[in-house]
Amino acid sequence: MPLVRVHNFSISLDGFGAGAPQSLESPFGHAGERLHEWMFATRFWDPEAGHQGVDDAFAVRHGDGFGAEIMGANKFGPPGWQDDPDWRGWWGEDPPFHTPTYVLTHRPRPPLEMQGGTTFHFLDASPEEALGVAQEAAGDLDVRLGGGASSIRSFVSAGLVDHLHLVVVPIVLGRGTRIWDGLDGVESAYDIESVASPSGVVHLTLTRRSRT
Amino acid sequence: MPLVRVHNFSISLDGFGAGAPQSLESPFGHAGERLHEWMFATRFWDPEAGHQGVDDAFAVRHGDGFGAEIMGANKFGPPGWQDDPDWRGWWGEDPPFHTPTYVLTHRPRPPLEMQGGTTFHFLDASPEEALGVAQEAAGDLDVRLGGGASSIRSFVSAGLVDHLHLVVVPIVLGRGTRIWDGLDGVESAYDIESVASPSGVVHLTLTRRSRT
Repeated sequence: MPLVRVHNFSISLDGFGAGAPQSLESPFGHAGERLHEWMFATRFWDPEAGHQGVDDAFAVRHGDGFGAEIMGANKFGPPGWQDDPDWRGWWGEDPPFHTPTYVLTHRPRPPLEMQGGTTFHFLDASPEEALGVAQEAAGDLDVRLGGGASSIRSFVSAGLVDHLHLVVVPIVLGRGTRIWDGLDGVESAYDIESVASPSGVVHLTLTRRSRT
Repeated sequence: MPLVRVHNFSISLDGFGAGAPQSLESPFGHAGERLHEWMFATRFWDPEAGHQGVDDAFAVRHGDGFGAEIMGANKFGPPGWQDDPDWRGWWGEDPPFHTPTYVLTHRPRPPLEMQGGTTFHFLDASPEEALGVAQEAAGDLDVRLGGGASSIRSFVSAGLVDHLHLVVVPIVLGRGTRIWDGLDGVESAYDIESVASPSGVVHLTLTRRSRT
């Protein structure tokens, strides 16, 4: 049965998935690129100079067997992107999704067909409704839940997520959007595993226990 | 030069050092004993049946070279212990400190001499003042900062702590006292290292960079 998975979602020690304030110039707020340096150093990101190892082994799973992505409005653009009819996402004309990609927003617009197989669809829908649409498009493949923190929280709270790969980066941000708020007791539904990488990050995986 | 160190301080994934509400019956609130099960399984805690390994290697450092301890009022007793003239701490007549132990409280009382070398002294003092007194008592030995979370935060914020050993337990508590609040940017002053244990916890050490 196809799964709903989160991959390569970086958080600070204090649980923030991005800093603040987020803007066109600073997509991750005061966190800058510090949450993602571990990934830039992998072969997954940089096929020529990147390292292989535990960071890369986790990172490549981002591309592994997905037929659709769902993302929150905060991932698609800076605050206010809905007011810009020309906004086409952060990723240029060939975004790294290569599948139908569903952007949750209260102000939907017509689909955007990009290069490389990515088409952005804009949905004003609940997590359950959005997942139904994405799973229909994904067929036998999995659905990736792309973030940000608040959309991950709402899907986990609704019991819709099978696997999460979070990457704890050794910085303390103090402000931004927290991943853990409202998820107290999540350990009762998931097996949780931690692996420390020589790069300094900790790969944290939450795998939903089978419901028997 | 003697150091100020924190050891075996457990926190949840979302950074809480204890649950809520704390009481005589539930010293760690709704966290119960879940933050400390990793330690109960070590030889340090249970010389007969405990395991040796990375958890034990870290745990034993709690007793390693200390001449004094400082703790916050919240560690010494349940909320309101100051109203009970007979309260002598959680630990019975032979507490596990074996040194002068300074309890920070706005309502000091006379010292309590316990067995095994522990004497509780009660101080209404700033972190700097309390540390001066404790270091005087400790002589050439280190001072242990025992917690809870808010007293650790205040000493780290004041730049007084050389080394912290935190233990991240894979549970999400959602409420209690957070260790990270107000410590944003702490990574600029400390080298941070993570080691994942087969028990499921992550040992996180913060070691202050030498100020040259």
